[in-house]
Amino acid sequence: MSFNTFGHLFRITTWGESHGPALGVVVDGCPPGITLTPEIIQRDLDRRKPGQSKFTTQRREDDAVKILSGVFEDERTGGPRTTGTPISLMIENTDQRSKDYGDIRDKYRPGHADFTYDQKYGIRDYRGGGRTSARETAARVAAGAVARQVLEGVTIRASLVQVGPHKIDYVNFDWSQVDQNPFFCADAKAAAFWADYLDGIRRDGNSVGAVIEVVAEGVPAGWGAPIYGKLSADLASAMMSINAVKAVEIGDGFDAAALTGVENADQMRAGEGGPHFLSNHAGGILGGISNGDPIVCRFAVKPTSSIITPRQTVTTANEDADIVTKGRHDPCVGIRAVPVGEAMMALVLADHMLRHRGQTGRNGAVGFERN
Amino acid sequence: MSFNTFGHLFRITTWGESHGPALGVVVDGCPPGITLTPEIIQRDLDRRKPGQSKFTTQRREDDAVKILSGVFEDERTGGPRTTGTPISLMIENTDQRSKDYGDIRDKYRPGHADFTYDQKYGIRDYRGGGRTSARETAARVAAGAVARQVLEGVTIRASLVQVGPHKIDYVNFDWSQVDQNPFFCADAKAAAFWADYLDGIRRDGNSVGAVIEVVAEGVPAGWGAPIYGKLSADLASAMMSINAVKAVEIGDGFDAAALTGVENADQMRAGEGGPHFLSNHAGGILGGISNGDPIVCRFAVKPTSSIITPRQTVTTANEDADIVTKGRHDPCVGIRAVPVGEAMMALVLADHMLRHRGQTGRNGAVGFERN
Amino acid sequence: MSFNTFGHLFRITTWGESHGPALGVVVDGCPPGITLTPEIIQRDLDRRKPGQSKFTTQRREDDAVKILSGVFEDERTGGPRTTGTPISLMIENTDQRSKDYGDIRDKYRPGHADFTYDQKYGIRDYRGGGRTSARETAARVAAGAVARQVLEGVTIRASLVQVGPHKIDYVNFDWSQVDQNPFFCADAKAAAFWADYLDGIRRDGNSVGAVIEVVAEGVPAGWGAPIYGKLSADLASAMMSINAVKAVEIGDGFDAAALTGVENADQMRAGEGGPHFLSNHAGGILGGISNGDPIVCRFAVKPTSSIITPRQTVTTANEDADIVTKGRHDPCVGIRAVPVGEAMMALVLADHMLRHRGQTGRNGAVGFERN
Amino acid sequence: MSFNTFGHLFRITTWGESHGPALGVVVDGCPPGITLTPEIIQRDLDRRKPGQSKFTTQRREDDAVKILSGVFEDERTGGPRTTGTPISLMIENTDQRSKDYGDIRDKYRPGHADFTYDQKYGIRDYRGGGRTSARETAARVAAGAVARQVLEGVTIRASLVQVGPHKIDYVNFDWSQVDQNPFFCADAKAAAFWADYLDGIRRDGNSVGAVIEVVAEGVPAGWGAPIYGKLSADLASAMMSINAVKAVEIGDGFDAAALTGVENADQMRAGEGGPHFLSNHAGGILGGISNGDPIVCRFAVKPTSSIITPRQTVTTANEDADIVTKGRHDPCVGIRAVPVGEAMMALVLADHMLRHRGQTGRNGAVGFERN
Repeated sequence: MSFNTFGHLFRITTWGESHGPALGVVVDGCPPGITLTPEIIQRDLDRRKPGQSKFTTQRREDDAVKILSGVFEDERTGGPRTTGTPISLMIENTDQRSKDYGDIRDKYRPGHADFTYDQKYGIRDYRGGGRTSARETAARVAAGAVARQVLEGVTIRASLVQVGPHKIDYVNFDWSQVDQNPFFCADAKAAAFWADYLDGIRRDGNSVGAVIEVVAEGVPAGWGAPIYGKLSADLASAMMSINAVKAVEIGDGFDAAALTGVENADQMRAGEGGPHFLSNHAGGILGGISNGDPIVCRFAVKPTSSIITPRQTVTTANEDADIVTKGRHDPCVGIRAVPVGEAMMALVLADHMLRHRGQTGRNGAVGFERN
Repeated sequence: MSFNTFGHLFRITTWGESHGPALGVVVDGCPPGITLTPEIIQRDLDRRKPGQSKFTTQRREDDAVKILSGVFEDERTGGPRTTGTPISLMIENTDQRSKDYGDIRDKYRPGHADFTYDQKYGIRDYRGGGRTSARETAARVAAGAVARQVLEGVTIRASLVQVGPHKIDYVNFDWSQVDQNPFFCADAKAAAFWADYLDGIRRDGNSVGAVIEVVAEGVPAGWGAPIYGKLSADLASAMMSINAVKAVEIGDGFDAAALTGVENADQMRAGEGGPHFLSNHAGGILGGISNGDPIVCRFAVKPTSSIITPRQTVTTANEDADIVTKGRHDPCVGIRAVPVGEAMMALVLADHMLRHRGQTGRNGAVGFERN
Repeated sequence: MSFNTFGHLFRITTWGESHGPALGVVVDGCPPGITLTPEIIQRDLDRRKPGQSKFTTQRREDDAVKILSGVFEDERTGGPRTTGTPISLMIENTDQRSKDYGDIRDKYRPGHADFTYDQKYGIRDYRGGGRTSARETAARVAAGAVARQVLEGVTIRASLVQVGPHKIDYVNFDWSQVDQNPFFCADAKAAAFWADYLDGIRRDGNSVGAVIEVVAEGVPAGWGAPIYGKLSADLASAMMSINAVKAVEIGDGFDAAALTGVENADQMRAGEGGPHFLSNHAGGILGGISNGDPIVCRFAVKPTSSIITPRQTVTTANEDADIVTKGRHDPCVGIRAVPVGEAMMALVLADHMLRHRGQTGRNGAVGFERN
Repeated sequence: MSFNTFGHLFRITTWGESHGPALGVVVDGCPPGITLTPEIIQRDLDRRKPGQSKFTTQRREDDAVKILSGVFEDERTGGPRTTGTPISLMIENTDQRSKDYGDIRDKYRPGHADFTYDQKYGIRDYRGGGRTSARETAARVAAGAVARQVLEGVTIRASLVQVGPHKIDYVNFDWSQVDQNPFFCADAKAAAFWADYLDGIRRDGNSVGAVIEVVAEGVPAGWGAPIYGKLSADLASAMMSINAVKAVEIGDGFDAAALTGVENADQMRAGEGGPHFLSNHAGGILGGISNGDPIVCRFAVKPTSSIITPRQTVTTANEDADIVTKGRHDPCVGIRAVPVGEAMMALVLADHMLRHRGQTGRNGAVGFERN
């Protein structure tokens, strides 16, 4: 089915609400013998953690992860190793400010899922958004850290490439910049410009959207399961499942619509290690299967829906009202979506690595190698 | 899992190659008691059928569907009805021109999945693209026709909204135009312009991409299963699984990234039948659940990869070569993706209708109705 | 897939090792609005808890359950209610005696999964059996308690019906006896006899197997999803997944093989509320679908593999050795499997109730009611 | 989900009714490069085919299989090979005698699923039992033949071991006898005795049940996915899904309940190729994982429900009636279940081989090999 589980052979089930005692994830199907410690997971969680700059929510959460199962160490394993059994990860919620929930209990916040949860379930945990809170993505990032450990030889990185209407200039693209600015942006100049721009947005009690690009290098040709488990389709589902995401594209994406077939063809040349492509309009995926080139995926995040500018809404009793969403909100929730995008890429790839290996008995041929 | 199955409670499994004896689909989980005849399915198949204008491939296929199981009629049912058992639909391939496959057997066509299938499976049916051929989408359209029968009260329509760099003007949008031109285009003027434009592209031995918009009206609030079975995530997966699709967006999609939170908020007002939204930036989906407004989804199709302009490639023996893809190809494969997009929308919605009903015991509340 | 998840629409994912910090379960797909408190779950957990008589392991665990997510209360709900989001339940391990694991680390215990886990994963948490410990069934019982809440109108009960070679006499069958003896046995006389018999087995450092019967009353006709999701097939899988279970049967089960068609036919008679059956050889399931009669399922549990009589085995280094499994073991592990069998029945039925409702829009017709 | 699909990585979806135009199966996830021809599949189908002796139904069906997709041959492959895409197999129904269905249309046959299908779906194809007919098992046998091709090195055989109350004597067990008598019985003496016995049953217008034993040799240690995808649990589900099956056991099964722990322990000894077991009470499965010994599974088939002795029933209008099920029926439907049991064993094992390979990267270690 679906609901709160993602993936097939390597798969995760997340749980938890924003203001409950904890949230977490069960990672099932992880191969045995993989090195795993809380520190490895914490590294990724800390990148997503709120409160690290004025451009993200000031909510303070340690987001300290505990490994409750699935990892074992004895003197013969030389360190903590996964055992092949389910890995349960838990993060306790520590910053649950007691406050008056009156407004979000009784009014539907535009852009939020308050109305639809009520319509679907007839009940909702309104405290901090409950299950719809972006806090759920902490569980994804924790699980993504496990997936990265599985993906030996694969490098997954992401960059914010657009904030509001302002896109980066790819001429300045430099991965080493990503952790040098509060935007996870590979273009230092854009980051500097965005800082001023976002400051203004924040002071206005407003918010903006963003676009994130995720790139995976080192993926061998062969991963992806046509027709309905295409690597591209699973990436689209993965990214679209992130809070506030409204669009996903692979390679040239929407721009490919404007190209001609002559322009869009990624031509090939022979080489010693096998054929290679002269361009990567395809974003590393052909027919739903990786082609050995970098996997390139972009997704758009809508502006943070929680803003302090009043908006028109209705109450749960179907009466007109205005609402102002007070609290500690991200002026651009897209920023913290960067590590989440990396995590989702890792989760999709780990799953497809195992599925490919299961069906074909191969890990995926690099270059021209057919095994 | 995935592979060749799509959906959960209402789900389809497609099979068949371009030049095999037949292709088909098994529709499993269809509710019992639904009216179904070959004519109902044929109506949708005929819209997708090739060879209907000079802008689509001249391959001629009847695409005549047979219902092999799952439908039964006796005097008491008042016509053929689904029985709740799997519905097997088959379409025989009638136009399998015998020809020399030398080139596509021995060379990888840029933009096609020849190389990746070889890398994944070590073997491929190269005749007409085999399993990667767009003929597979006939099976989707047949299954989609069944899904539409299930979705009483829901109207699903699609329009081509961009061909190459040329977008339609939404001012002229008129659903009644869609079946009046060879482009399934709701803007008659755009269609007229595209006709000339595409003629030139075709004569140049070139091709272009396109964008399709699919809209579902009449979907009640409440469908969609957070967190990983969001309606938006399943639509993204569904559309991205269509041949040559590289991008998907819901509502404002990528444009939402450039909006502010004030602009993007779909404000609400109370009304007699319950609350309603004053705008639909969200494309009818909030938090992964339908909100009662029209579901709006767009996807981009890359230019047809089969072109008669020579492109550089390699042989299966890893030697440099040029390739010209002769044959009967669509100058804009996006045109025939229009009915396919409708079918995928229907499949996703039928599945979510059943899943919602299963979990909550309700069909989905229209308007403000909660139970 | 499978691994550590059971069920489809109503489904559980369990995690945790015997000597890790905790074990737990995520219940996903539970309908919203159901009353749920820790006390409701604890009631079932306490029945399964070890250390309650000399016939079960003396390991002492409180098995105190915590609800970490998926339940919410505000003044309008009138008590804690499920919200439709995943319910995370956790039980901390409190009795992890520090001890020397030398023997079970280095030798394979006959009848246990030590050897096969090593063969499969190349690593295992040997402390107390790790993931293979019967402690995992606490998570099932906790989840089963949630399923029972969903199954309004359905009564699920179980009885031990055989210990070693000694079967109960169904003439004495009385459900009210089940909680009056340490064997969950509906036949008070058998229970008294077994007490003496098992005392001898225990003193001999030996163990015995058992058979459990689970009965569900109040299940309407119509649940079960042919062909591969038959109610009987899912029950078989559910019961066989319990530790040490080697056999499952529905209704007359193996005895049906010895009957003739004339004897085995459950004849029907008309009645005011609809047809009824004159016998129940079928155990309430025909063609994989419930027929309105009680669902009857039996399963066999092999003798506890941990015994203090020395047995021949090999070391992990492939050397001959003898092993004695010291520790606190159940002389008849089948006893504590009784509440586990009830839980698995509840989990299967809750899942099928939702699936049936999803596909047909009905809850299942009671009697002849067709809706 | 479930419904008409079985398996995960290697999985099948069957379709078709007894008196529809055809029935079939889609085999998805089959590894590429496997030799497959209609002849290979036909061999297994012919063993199951009706009308081969007076002890099976006289309905005459050719059961000729067609491969519609997923297999390809060119000069380089050296014969027809699977391509990794879905394999669609179809068997046309040729013996659909036109006849009066009045009785089975209007009356519920005891022991059949007529009543429950009506209760579940509100409609049923009553011709020859429709979807509930044992003809569906032809699709399983066809798919099982594909699975056998995948399972290189694994030998799967089955024998009828009980007819009515008469069990075989294992002293006479000889696999070479299985195809020498009309009962697929490994005990020639039992087969001779059963011939007389069944003749009497048939002349009396009665029927009897049976027990089948399926054995798989050559399965390496390591297959099976705890906790809820145990090899034993999946076998139980597989066998219980066969028409008329009411019980399943692994290894000693129900007899294990009567053993002591000392008796039941399969002791181990070291050896050159690794450890081995001194007995096989476990039936080759420990903790849900294969241990390298033969997998032993038995299942019970109830007596054929279609008998010509009148039985009491009700009409669809809830009125008392008697029914005699005329037609061409098996006096012991268990006989033809023998090849079906083999097929289900093959399907479970092929799936687990791929799943094990996916999660661990190994094919399953034979003997003590850990790799």
